[in-house]
Amino acid sequence: MVVVMHAAASEAEVSDVVDRVTHAGGEAFISRGASRTIIGLIGDLDHFGDLGLDGMPGVDHTVRISTPYKLVSRDHHPDRSTVWLGSGETHTPIGPGVLTVMAGPCAVETEEQTLEAAELARQLGATVLRGGAYKPRTSPYAFQGLGRRGLEILADVRSEIGLPIVTEIVDAADVDIIAEHADMLQIGTRNMANFALLQAVGSAGKPVLLKRGMSATIEEWLMAAEYVAQRGNLEIVLCERGIRTFETATRNTLDISAVPVAQALSHLPVIVDPSHSGGRRELVEPLSRAAVAVGADGLLIDVHPHPESARVDGAQALAAEDITEIAESLTALATTVGRSYSAPAR
Amino acid sequence: MVVVMHAAASEAEVSDVVDRVTHAGGEAFISRGASRTIIGLIGDLDHFGDLGLDGMPGVDHTVRISTPYKLVSRDHHPDRSTVWLGSGETHTPIGPGVLTVMAGPCAVETEEQTLEAAELARQLGATVLRGGAYKPRTSPYAFQGLGRRGLEILADVRSEIGLPIVTEIVDAADVDIIAEHADMLQIGTRNMANFALLQAVGSAGKPVLLKRGMSATIEEWLMAAEYVAQRGNLEIVLCERGIRTFETATRNTLDISAVPVAQALSHLPVIVDPSHSGGRRELVEPLSRAAVAVGADGLLIDVHPHPESARVDGAQALAAEDITEIAESLTALATTVGRSYSAPAR
Amino acid sequence: MVVVMHAAASEAEVSDVVDRVTHAGGEAFISRGASRTIIGLIGDLDHFGDLGLDGMPGVDHTVRISTPYKLVSRDHHPDRSTVWLGSGETHTPIGPGVLTVMAGPCAVETEEQTLEAAELARQLGATVLRGGAYKPRTSPYAFQGLGRRGLEILADVRSEIGLPIVTEIVDAADVDIIAEHADMLQIGTRNMANFALLQAVGSAGKPVLLKRGMSATIEEWLMAAEYVAQRGNLEIVLCERGIRTFETATRNTLDISAVPVAQALSHLPVIVDPSHSGGRRELVEPLSRAAVAVGADGLLIDVHPHPESARVDGAQALAAEDITEIAESLTALATTVGRSYSAPAR
Amino acid sequence: MVVVMHAAASEAEVSDVVDRVTHAGGEAFISRGASRTIIGLIGDLDHFGDLGLDGMPGVDHTVRISTPYKLVSRDHHPDRSTVWLGSGETHTPIGPGVLTVMAGPCAVETEEQTLEAAELARQLGATVLRGGAYKPRTSPYAFQGLGRRGLEILADVRSEIGLPIVTEIVDAADVDIIAEHADMLQIGTRNMANFALLQAVGSAGKPVLLKRGMSATIEEWLMAAEYVAQRGNLEIVLCERGIRTFETATRNTLDISAVPVAQALSHLPVIVDPSHSGGRRELVEPLSRAAVAVGADGLLIDVHPHPESARVDGAQALAAEDITEIAESLTALATTVGRSYSAPAR
Repeated sequence: MVVVMHAAASEAEVSDVVDRVTHAGGEAFISRGASRTIIGLIGDLDHFGDLGLDGMPGVDHTVRISTPYKLVSRDHHPDRSTVWLGSGETHTPIGPGVLTVMAGPCAVETEEQTLEAAELARQLGATVLRGGAYKPRTSPYAFQGLGRRGLEILADVRSEIGLPIVTEIVDAADVDIIAEHADMLQIGTRNMANFALLQAVGSAGKPVLLKRGMSATIEEWLMAAEYVAQRGNLEIVLCERGIRTFETATRNTLDISAVPVAQALSHLPVIVDPSHSGGRRELVEPLSRAAVAVGADGLLIDVHPHPESARVDGAQALAAEDITEIAESLTALATTVGRSYSAPAR
Repeated sequence: MVVVMHAAASEAEVSDVVDRVTHAGGEAFISRGASRTIIGLIGDLDHFGDLGLDGMPGVDHTVRISTPYKLVSRDHHPDRSTVWLGSGETHTPIGPGVLTVMAGPCAVETEEQTLEAAELARQLGATVLRGGAYKPRTSPYAFQGLGRRGLEILADVRSEIGLPIVTEIVDAADVDIIAEHADMLQIGTRNMANFALLQAVGSAGKPVLLKRGMSATIEEWLMAAEYVAQRGNLEIVLCERGIRTFETATRNTLDISAVPVAQALSHLPVIVDPSHSGGRRELVEPLSRAAVAVGADGLLIDVHPHPESARVDGAQALAAEDITEIAESLTALATTVGRSYSAPAR
Repeated sequence: MVVVMHAAASEAEVSDVVDRVTHAGGEAFISRGASRTIIGLIGDLDHFGDLGLDGMPGVDHTVRISTPYKLVSRDHHPDRSTVWLGSGETHTPIGPGVLTVMAGPCAVETEEQTLEAAELARQLGATVLRGGAYKPRTSPYAFQGLGRRGLEILADVRSEIGLPIVTEIVDAADVDIIAEHADMLQIGTRNMANFALLQAVGSAGKPVLLKRGMSATIEEWLMAAEYVAQRGNLEIVLCERGIRTFETATRNTLDISAVPVAQALSHLPVIVDPSHSGGRRELVEPLSRAAVAVGADGLLIDVHPHPESARVDGAQALAAEDITEIAESLTALATTVGRSYSAPAR
Repeated sequence: MVVVMHAAASEAEVSDVVDRVTHAGGEAFISRGASRTIIGLIGDLDHFGDLGLDGMPGVDHTVRISTPYKLVSRDHHPDRSTVWLGSGETHTPIGPGVLTVMAGPCAVETEEQTLEAAELARQLGATVLRGGAYKPRTSPYAFQGLGRRGLEILADVRSEIGLPIVTEIVDAADVDIIAEHADMLQIGTRNMANFALLQAVGSAGKPVLLKRGMSATIEEWLMAAEYVAQRGNLEIVLCERGIRTFETATRNTLDISAVPVAQALSHLPVIVDPSHSGGRRELVEPLSRAAVAVGADGLLIDVHPHPESARVDGAQALAAEDITEIAESLTALATTVGRSYSAPAR
């Protein structure tokens, strides 16, 4: 950490900073410049953060040099991790060398719709079925998901189709019931900084899919993962799903650079959600291509047997007629980048 | 709602949209332009949202015309509301004609610190004491607040100093204990879209202070308020606390326009947090002046008896030596804009 | 400047950085931390920037500590400046202690319209007349202004009404003709980083009104001012006019904090454009109040005798019926904050 | 265009809007809803824009339905265009079916450096040499480029190495001299809305490379292209180079979705600048892969023989040791997406 003093800071103020750091067991190096003094600190960063140096007289601001997360960083674990989902026949890896497709309906509506969507997912080469039972909706008047009934439908479809399931959790009170029915718990973009939920999920004993908050920096995203990791759960997959910018032509702006940046900083797998990023069906294929090419470990894709009557986000769901083209695209690209992926021949 | 068809949409696709709308009890007006057809819809908007028109063949996009919130809108309640806090001697209004200052420490650390901060708050003319017992922190390694012990300290200080208390809630499981100790429950910026928490708080029978999400639009903020209102609780105060932009000179960018805009759309009181917006002590006074002048119904201000050793956000907390100047500033401005406010003579 | 080395940087790479700095006449202090080494530099910053330290092997990134602008900074000129416009009877100050209102039509359309608008401006207490002859428009098919004829109208109106004139310049080739007709040259938001234009204007011998770029940081804005200053012209007034964010309820987001921040970093006067910030007539008055209260040195306001038929931005122009209320508002606030301003009694 | 009236708009105000539209030769359809009336307009959009409907009494806001650009749109020219650069042996296409790499030094420093960089560019499979002679720099104290001497160096290197040249223009006064030396004129991100420059370049008779403004929407970018096209020059290549967001881990946020979105709206070729987007050497390769996979028509890449001593942006320039890996990557991906590209064997 570097402490930058005000141009007008006094010698006594500089000494006070140095004293507080050294009393806390750190070391401080003073560099006196033409216009101001800076103080370089060496020691345990978290401790310095709690020292309140920012609020001391004469301090202009502080600059952090090292990363504030540990367990999820590559300093802690230099090799990239693989997270495993499900068990037995449905045991599925997410990580280097694999292109894992997670697909399914944005919201579970009926058993029939979910089964048809799961069939589309399979045709897309998905090895994980996604489906929402609890839906966080901007409007309280919008369809909020089937809740427990949705979980049961997902579990039924899993036993029929043989794919492990990922579903979103929005309330810490639902951890047990969801962990009982699903193979992976998803934290949505609106809850990325819901620390109580992160901690509850960290203790649930299931892998976690952590979406980036819609205006979160990559560092804040990794800090959210650290909340989960701190509870002893390192089975975390990061999901980039677009950030909020001034551009209105797309629902969100897919931050494609976040994939290599997060993979360089953290050992956790990073996947991309092209459906929520673009918000439009015709963008799913090109954004999926970009994601695979940039090095993403997987994709999270909305599919729906009847997008024209979907209760949630129909505009972005792939329909049956879109599947073949995108499966061919992914097959070609996965080969090019050296990742295993296969969609069934049709 | 207006449905904009693709330039290449067929007559059959246009008819399908009209049919779905009329079957659902709405009316549809077709306007055929030189390059494309648009369809104006009349009827219950929420219903149209669930019709999934966005996903229909031939539809380019839909444009919503009316607002999606009801209970918190001025259509529902044309006059601006006043929210009352506490009872008996501490009965305190927030709304038109009053400038309500809420002040206190960002985090409760000790009884002594809280009492000293409360004294500073009183000198600042505060009629509400703020203090954090449960702190949502970006880092799991940072001080997370005293929890229940913090609530007890706040309650003790209230009985000593006679100010009603507002404190943040971060977990729906804590609703009862916090509602028991505090006079108003605060939803922080990170939880604005934590709908489970909004609903829990909506049922708690206490006024709610709802901070705007750091990248939430004003409309999404009002939708979050609608979640609380839908549970029968219209005692809601909105708090603008700065939004996330590319500017790094300030912690956040205070969206001062949000005050008149939200007041025009909603009947709820709107206050401003100049401490978290600017993130720097020297900006608290000018931003408070701007907030009062623009028409804010109140201010939420960090004060600390010893900012240089504050465990959280010391850089933005006012200290004893700052109080007089800002109290004088607020006195002059409150008079100018016709709001009642008074700080004790020193 | 601080150079942060990669965690894996070698001793030789550290030495190379130190050598390059010392050969260039600077000093370098090495601080070795647990996980990485940082190097503090002392000396002439601009020189270090050109040393290309960012691109050296082993360097992770560099952190600048001091400000990159000089002539416009308060280090260069600790007292806040006053800029004077016009001469003789129209000699008008912009700076501390004064609230300077610049008002007029967004675009000059006819002599009659400009004269009527100038009359409204006078009623608003304006001491400077604004009016656009060359309009930078997003669409090449939109009205681009009257050009030279517009300048002549402005000059005619000036001699009739006795107010100095500010008008926008969009092409360096027009410097002479505009400088001949106007008292102050305006650089619009789209041209803030048009360095050729900044340099041309810096040599024109007239005061400059420099609008902030719509996504410029405050530091970049001050660097743009430095381009003008470097040509020997320190008669610069900064104008905050809203920045681009995700919020769509307003045309731009007025960054009210930019006023005190820019005033603390630079000695130049800072004014606010409430018309382009909000983009809506009903926001002009509350945003003007906020601007005066926060400490702005002036306001730039669109007025139009017939907004309903304005060729540019009619939605945000004040009309005759709005003038009295805002003039009263400004009178009360100017008194409160101790700035001289007066609008004629009506 | 749709005109949305205020909830409280009177019948007379509705009639006034309809009258103004019909008098101007358009048609207006009234839809009366439960809470407000909307008016659909049919006719020439640009004309409606100039009618000033936004400023009329009773009008809340207007919603545009069709696109405001014409010549660059796919409505005007349904097939995607190919732009040709240079002539004779250096005749080079940019468009569908080709992956055009433009590479070279960010700034021309010396003839030797430019020649070495051109050699690296050739090894990267570049068919166009980029190089900056006039550099727009945030700081007036930074290296501003060699100017005319830089152009001469570029022309010399062209005759030696046989690649057409693209170079940036920052001042309309330089159009003739640059058009004389270069094969393509580049408009940089800071000048995207410098309409005087766009018009000057539109008349220069050379192909134009138009970078997206750092906070420009895709629509504004296409409007800027329309300014060039309107002068009779449709030889325009669009370049996405990252937009400004809150994320600080990258220099800008590459908006990868902008490629398919712009290609769907416009017939012009779209290329990507991975160097300025990420701002870091190690991101150039993954971002280039993403760009090719998403369907970009080309890449604009910084290379430098000695990045550690580059005078501008050394941190993002590829060096000799990076070339082979990225050339192999591009070869594999170009094949996968069916575009012609070849780098010389080494």
